[in-house]
Amino acid sequence: MSEKIRVSEIFGPTIQGEGAVIGVPTVFVRTGGCDFRCSWCDSLHAVDQEYRHTWAPMTSQSVLEAVADLSEGEPLMITLSGGNPAIQPLGELINLGQAQGYTFGMETQGSVVKDWFAKLDMLVLSPKPPSSGMETDWKMLARCVVQGAAQTVLKIVVFDDVDFSYAQEVAKRFPDLPIYLQPGNHTPPPPEDDDAEVDIEGIDDRMRWLVDRVVEKKWYSARVLPQLHVMLWGNKRGV
Amino acid sequence: MSEKIRVSEIFGPTIQGEGAVIGVPTVFVRTGGCDFRCSWCDSLHAVDQEYRHTWAPMTSQSVLEAVADLSEGEPLMITLSGGNPAIQPLGELINLGQAQGYTFGMETQGSVVKDWFAKLDMLVLSPKPPSSGMETDWKMLARCVVQGAAQTVLKIVVFDDVDFSYAQEVAKRFPDLPIYLQPGNHTPPPPEDDDAEVDIEGIDDRMRWLVDRVVEKKWYSARVLPQLHVMLWGNKRGV
Repeated sequence: MSEKIRVSEIFGPTIQGEGAVIGVPTVFVRTGGCDFRCSWCDSLHAVDQEYRHTWAPMTSQSVLEAVADLSEGEPLMITLSGGNPAIQPLGELINLGQAQGYTFGMETQGSVVKDWFAKLDMLVLSPKPPSSGMETDWKMLARCVVQGAAQTVLKIVVFDDVDFSYAQEVAKRFPDLPIYLQPGNHTPPPPEDDDAEVDIEGIDDRMRWLVDRVVEKKWYSARVLPQLHVMLWGNKRGV
Repeated sequence: MSEKIRVSEIFGPTIQGEGAVIGVPTVFVRTGGCDFRCSWCDSLHAVDQEYRHTWAPMTSQSVLEAVADLSEGEPLMITLSGGNPAIQPLGELINLGQAQGYTFGMETQGSVVKDWFAKLDMLVLSPKPPSSGMETDWKMLARCVVQGAAQTVLKIVVFDDVDFSYAQEVAKRFPDLPIYLQPGNHTPPPPEDDDAEVDIEGIDDRMRWLVDRVVEKKWYSARVLPQLHVMLWGNKRGV
């Protein structure tokens, strides 16, 4: 019998709000549990062990059925998010889904590698910058890159100049990977209040600053994108 | 001697705010003159003959020099916009630029075809929906698709249900091309006042409505993206 997946929430279809597949209709499967604890985490309800009782253990088959209910049986892109989805047994879900026409994108910080990464249609490696309070295991990140997927990209959240330098360091280490820069949200939702106010103007200021920095550094191979869902729906969950 | 290009403005680097290459640093070369006159045109200063005296006739070489001044000699993506850039002699500019490492994206409505389309790195065909007041020449649009580029995509501005149906019709006619849907801006800038108020909330409402419509129709192959530059900078020109 196969291992169960810890699922925090399944929601959509909505559009992907970030990175390489921004704007693509998708259903999110957010897993529960994380080996990181970023200072500005915007998904604490899927990270903090205090909420572990809300993470339902589900089989691959039941996850796929829940997605199909939401997408009304029509295959689409499934986004595996977390928490850190890399700590879950997701290989079987990907096999089952792809056989039915679904595609799979996953975002992870690159602190854990699994052989099933290779099956993903899109792997977004999002190592965490200094402002997160986390350390980067460069060797492990490199292993994730090598393990790869049909398409592998980097995405770095940037709050300040130190984070920006970190992003440049990441790009230097992996010059062949497309890199996306994303302004951080300094007003992430508390885990039990998704109606909490978001400082959109502050986030937009950071986005404009980030565009200026990229231009100033003539870093024309980087791509700068905001969290579109935050601009459109604030911290609201389920969209 | 080669024909001159009518140039309304050259600005950047900033990020591309729309469509397939959203977020990519770019310099815009906006040509003057258009065979269309869309009811909600947001670039009338490059369309209305009243402003023709502001459209400088420039050689390919001088356009490229102006771009290089802005990008400080570092090659990047050049976005050819308008007006309708397809009515300009741009083949030589593309040749010269690509030899120096620049890449070229162009957006046009698909009402005019040129053999140099084939040299473009990215061709965005943006036929105009009913709300524009314009008619689509389907045969000419098909010729543009066939003429193609390294990558060809469709982008449709959507204001209402009639436009949405039009977008579905376009997708049906060209099922092999990626398609981007973009909420329209009902508060475009008057040609001489780029500080004019934009109804961002209204545009965001239309964006959310468009996501809902795509989901409702299970149109999961469409991609929905806003005009990011309008969200960040309003109607301001030069960003």
